[in-house]
Amino acid sequence: MAPVKVHGNVLSVCTRRVIAALYEKDVKFEVVPIDLGTGEHKKEPFISLNPFGEVPAFEDGDLKLFESRAITQYIVHEYADKGTPMVFQDSKKMAMIAVGCEVEGQKFDPAASKLTFEQVIKPMLKMPTDAAVVEEYEAKLAVVLDVYEIRLAQSKYLAGERFTLADLHHIPTIHYLMGTQSKKLFVCRPHVSAWVADITARPAWKKVIALQK
Amino acid sequence: MAPVKVHGNVLSVCTRRVIAALYEKDVKFEVVPIDLGTGEHKKEPFISLNPFGEVPAFEDGDLKLFESRAITQYIVHEYADKGTPMVFQDSKKMAMIAVGCEVEGQKFDPAASKLTFEQVIKPMLKMPTDAAVVEEYEAKLAVVLDVYEIRLAQSKYLAGERFTLADLHHIPTIHYLMGTQSKKLFVCRPHVSAWVADITARPAWKKVIALQK
Repeated sequence: MAPVKVHGNVLSVCTRRVIAALYEKDVKFEVVPIDLGTGEHKKEPFISLNPFGEVPAFEDGDLKLFESRAITQYIVHEYADKGTPMVFQDSKKMAMIAVGCEVEGQKFDPAASKLTFEQVIKPMLKMPTDAAVVEEYEAKLAVVLDVYEIRLAQSKYLAGERFTLADLHHIPTIHYLMGTQSKKLFVCRPHVSAWVADITARPAWKKVIALQK
Repeated sequence: MAPVKVHGNVLSVCTRRVIAALYEKDVKFEVVPIDLGTGEHKKEPFISLNPFGEVPAFEDGDLKLFESRAITQYIVHEYADKGTPMVFQDSKKMAMIAVGCEVEGQKFDPAASKLTFEQVIKPMLKMPTDAAVVEEYEAKLAVVLDVYEIRLAQSKYLAGERFTLADLHHIPTIHYLMGTQSKKLFVCRPHVSAWVADITARPAWKKVIALQK
């Protein structure tokens, strides 16, 4: 029996963030499907795993966690000797990963998630996309990607020459946005474009995508 | 000469978050004042330290960082042998700090910062507070504080029985909100109220406040 359980939905970006980290680290796990359509995430027993009622929730033996970026941090440290390292031992190099992760959570994701909601989630729910909101948030995302373009001209990945957690956190929303008109924001910036191609081609990410079939 | 420099404004919540961590860790530093009124944070040389043009930026010798929560993480790990620990060695206990920090950054802060802007920053700038926005974001903050009330009934601090980075990250916005009508959200929840009293009474925080005089 797998000790690690991911309670979530294989289409959700936050669930995918955690599963991508588990595949990168070669950690065995099982997905416990949560039906968002029936609001299973807002009821017991899920709500006892995540009091905010959002997927995913995570279990590793007796340890119960939520917040996808906290779960991935736990995974890379707990399973440090397995799979892709994704962190550094040196505190100064580690600080660059922390900056990359914070920029993703505080700057990239608020814009990218809004664009994903408007252009991916709303169509799934047969709701109309709001073009003005898309325009507003594409402008916000462009500001962030301008900074990334400069950064990625200096190093192959956000925190240096190696793929780390800072890069991984971006993959799920980027994957969805590459199927929308917002793709133009990524492809028009050559270093961002090369980075996107690289991180979305990782075998671990391909396994995440395969789960939806 | 102090090797650690905090480029920022001693009234800014993000600058204060970093300075509070430095005082907790007994790390010597100097503040390089950035004049937000003249837009110094949007120009060189500051913009080379933080391409997003937001205070604070941070230097420790050759290392240059931004994003307050990434800076505090660096401080607690780099200066692990000094001052208040604020982190754990054990990866499972560390994971609880990561959950607390992510909840602060993703759930608490978006509501608390909006309320601070409306009720503290706007009056400073002689702009009118929008009562409807305050009502909307107080409702959002109440949802987060309901979860905190249950959590803080189980342990004295967010990540266990010891003060950690997860608690520290909250102090600057809470300090401002305790001077507004939103104070009621904290005082009506007994465990949250006791936690607020405890963390805002820390000597390190009192030193942060003293800087504004």
